[in-house]
Amino acid sequence: MIERVQQVLNGDRRALARLLTHVENEREGVEQALAALFPYTGRAWVVGVTGAPGTGKSTLVNEMTKLYRAQGKTVAILAIDPTSPFTGGALLGDRVRMRDLSGDKGVFIRSMATRGSLGGLARAARDAIRVLDAGGFDVVLVETVGAGQNEVDIVRAADTTVVVEAPGMGDEVQAIKAGILEIADVLVVNKADRPGVNHTVRALKMMLEIGHPSSRSQLSAHHGRLLPAHEVAQDTQSHEAMWLPPIVQTVASEGKGVDQVVSAIADHRRFLEANDLRETVERQHIEVELYERLRDSLMARLLQDVPSSAIATMIEQIQAREIDPQNAVRQILAQVEG
Amino acid sequence: MIERVQQVLNGDRRALARLLTHVENEREGVEQALAALFPYTGRAWVVGVTGAPGTGKSTLVNEMTKLYRAQGKTVAILAIDPTSPFTGGALLGDRVRMRDLSGDKGVFIRSMATRGSLGGLARAARDAIRVLDAGGFDVVLVETVGAGQNEVDIVRAADTTVVVEAPGMGDEVQAIKAGILEIADVLVVNKADRPGVNHTVRALKMMLEIGHPSSRSQLSAHHGRLLPAHEVAQDTQSHEAMWLPPIVQTVASEGKGVDQVVSAIADHRRFLEANDLRETVERQHIEVELYERLRDSLMARLLQDVPSSAIATMIEQIQAREIDPQNAVRQILAQVEG
Repeated sequence: MIERVQQVLNGDRRALARLLTHVENEREGVEQALAALFPYTGRAWVVGVTGAPGTGKSTLVNEMTKLYRAQGKTVAILAIDPTSPFTGGALLGDRVRMRDLSGDKGVFIRSMATRGSLGGLARAARDAIRVLDAGGFDVVLVETVGAGQNEVDIVRAADTTVVVEAPGMGDEVQAIKAGILEIADVLVVNKADRPGVNHTVRALKMMLEIGHPSSRSQLSAHHGRLLPAHEVAQDTQSHEAMWLPPIVQTVASEGKGVDQVVSAIADHRRFLEANDLRETVERQHIEVELYERLRDSLMARLLQDVPSSAIATMIEQIQAREIDPQNAVRQILAQVEG
Repeated sequence: MIERVQQVLNGDRRALARLLTHVENEREGVEQALAALFPYTGRAWVVGVTGAPGTGKSTLVNEMTKLYRAQGKTVAILAIDPTSPFTGGALLGDRVRMRDLSGDKGVFIRSMATRGSLGGLARAARDAIRVLDAGGFDVVLVETVGAGQNEVDIVRAADTTVVVEAPGMGDEVQAIKAGILEIADVLVVNKADRPGVNHTVRALKMMLEIGHPSSRSQLSAHHGRLLPAHEVAQDTQSHEAMWLPPIVQTVASEGKGVDQVVSAIADHRRFLEANDLRETVERQHIEVELYERLRDSLMARLLQDVPSSAIATMIEQIQAREIDPQNAVRQILAQVEG
């Protein structure tokens, strides 16, 4: 697999596609390939685009891609469906619409759907983003359905997160339900030619006001989600610059307003870079990832040392109320040490 | 805190309330109290009630409680809001409506909102359910907003899970978005006097058909979510009984149809008990919990052995692309062993 790494770095699209398949299937040798690619990451600007089904995310991503191409930038699109296998496929179906882009060598499109655990998907997405980043794309657009914690985990790998709403999706703004408003760097109200658009924009503004500086310490949403408490306190003292997510209205199906989305992303990038915040954000992403990997590795090693029969016996004893779960953990760990 | 355990077991409600506060705040001594209570758990029937905001969950829980009381059963209500602090409080506000129940000694009401991590909330909820179970309530109703993986984790502690929908909440059935349909044992379409109710019921039926036996192996949703692959295969061969979630229409604000919800829960309980499935389900819950606790304990121990400066240095090296995350993990673990 290591020779494929060189091909990916050389811009070989078929090698790239094959490596992504290996990442998705967690094939043997992928770890080494990812380690070899890692020094070449951190160059692409990763944009997460999330929102409820029906908001027109795919159309928006499609149109954004055309604008980036017009700017001479290469674009990789990673479309992720973290919803259940029940609904799986809807997003993949949308990809058909994007065939008009796929004749362009400067565009690469890839879909990933839920297979095993949702945590596994977030990990695979992070690795896939790194592969695309190392593959030399200027922009990586990560499109995912907004439905809870999992796509929050997925967009956590993004430099700029775009949350898409649409009017008339129900009584409430979808992002609020899913708790994804807090991670938005740019808010888009798509289908802005529909009735109710003013209501949706007003609701978003209200939520931003509730969630923003005056009421929620002196921090941008971007800070709010990422800095640990002691760093937050420092930032408040230093009166650092703040990013207030702009609300952009679009009719993506007609290409209207999409240029403003692309501009807002560029503004956000400039804001992060001017305030040396990109590195702060990246450091926090790395910290989260390192802890997660440590946790997984520790558990894998424990399961090598403790026979599965011992764990099965412990589960039986807990079920019989002969031992409580926390003391069961103590006994298992004592076995490893002894 | 141990003397409080005896008071809780004796039915002392003030001791119960205080212990729940300690659980919520993860106070010292809580672990021993939970261990002491653990032998007295497993008696209550735990019913999870989840659904999007605005579906009328609180009113339904209110009316269900009255019916259980009429059957002579004691009821504890645990209302959990896993959504962000942005929206926090809505659920708690609803509790005011339930004051009419709180004069009844056979009813105990408690709210928990998000404080730290969502994972922490799921753990606190599981412990709170155990305290209420040991407190001697016949039924524990756990009410939570359905918005993603986190309330899926919370209702995982339930014996029966009720998913609440309402017509006119938007283009799509809310549960499908959040992926919570798969965990439903009973489906309720509340506000069934509203226009669009037939559409909602049809959509749910369609989703159940897609997700159920003929198309998705020979298993009920209940099995689908819980059994590991090898056990699923065995079950398919044994042609075990299947549970198809009934769809119940209610107008909870007028008490209409709520008796059918209570009956459906009783049917589900009889189904699980007749097929010895409650223990299978419980064993799987215990397994998940044990692994989670092992993971947390291993990590806590690692952080005792590895100085935080060593981890900070590693994060810097990763950010500088001098090492990749997986090799960083290997080096940290080697330090502990060396």
